[in-house]
Amino acid sequence: MRVLGVDPGLTRCGVGVVEGEAGRPLRMVGVGTLRTPVEADVPERLRLLEVGLEEWLETHRPERVAVERVFSQHNVRSVMGTAQASAVAMLCAARRGLPVALHTPSEVKAAVTGSGRAEKAQVGAMVTRLLRLTELPRPADAADALALAICHIWRAPAQHRLAHETARARTAATRLPKGARS
Amino acid sequence: MRVLGVDPGLTRCGVGVVEGEAGRPLRMVGVGTLRTPVEADVPERLRLLEVGLEEWLETHRPERVAVERVFSQHNVRSVMGTAQASAVAMLCAARRGLPVALHTPSEVKAAVTGSGRAEKAQVGAMVTRLLRLTELPRPADAADALALAICHIWRAPAQHRLAHETARARTAATRLPKGARS
Repeated sequence: MRVLGVDPGLTRCGVGVVEGEAGRPLRMVGVGTLRTPVEADVPERLRLLEVGLEEWLETHRPERVAVERVFSQHNVRSVMGTAQASAVAMLCAARRGLPVALHTPSEVKAAVTGSGRAEKAQVGAMVTRLLRLTELPRPADAADALALAICHIWRAPAQHRLAHETARARTAATRLPKGARS
Repeated sequence: MRVLGVDPGLTRCGVGVVEGEAGRPLRMVGVGTLRTPVEADVPERLRLLEVGLEEWLETHRPERVAVERVFSQHNVRSVMGTAQASAVAMLCAARRGLPVALHTPSEVKAAVTGSGRAEKAQVGAMVTRLLRLTELPRPADAADALALAICHIWRAPAQHRLAHETARARTAATRLPKGARS
């Protein structure tokens, strides 16, 4: 499975492509940061981001895209930019018919470090180790994008299994005789 | 000036095209609502919204696009959808090189009714009157999109004048002798 991880942002948008399967060694295909000028207006910044993301999709042909899920409890202004950047990433993927998964920052941290509260440095260190890189990917947004892709590769089978189990449980429940349900 | 107003949303996105100049009668060119299915995932909904907006831009060829400015103090979930939908509208406009203006809901209300705290019904009534329509555009999102376009046509000259005056004031200030500035 080849996954493009996107850590959305207007000033810096981290992108990282990882190939692999759960339980097997992972391989980094590419990593980088897309930047748009702070002095440009938001529509133009979104357009530049689209151009950059299209290049990554075209060059690396991922089969899935994992985007960081945006929460709005943080700083209002930056959340808007992040939400808008993530919309462009989701749109580019959907236009190509690629499945998109959203993972929260703590899901990503938990996947690569074992703790949902891990610090940035710890995430970076684990990404470097898991992808057998010679140095830490910089800036942090680039490392976060790789962590997102890894998280997706590792969680995907569990998510499928969960969906399958839930469906089976539902079917089983509907088969129970009336009195057996409380 | 021909303006496409967009009241962004994933479930219902209002679109309205108005033609005119400040101080002259306005003409409605088109009005409608783009809908995306609630059961589809967000990336797919954004893609469908893009297809719909592209159709409106292609058919009506506006010279400018006015989008409602999104605030994040409201409901977290709906704000995310609105921010993402507005990103798609801004992106579509920027790709065509069209200038995009953002107006807040109270700017729009103040422009068409004289009060920034006007109710929905009052906005709808004024839109109907100003565009000399035979009936109220429905749903409210469609009327709001027309109000946005009207607001933009009326505010655009004032905004240009303001930008001009600010620039002139800045130039004047830099010419003042040192002691004249406090």
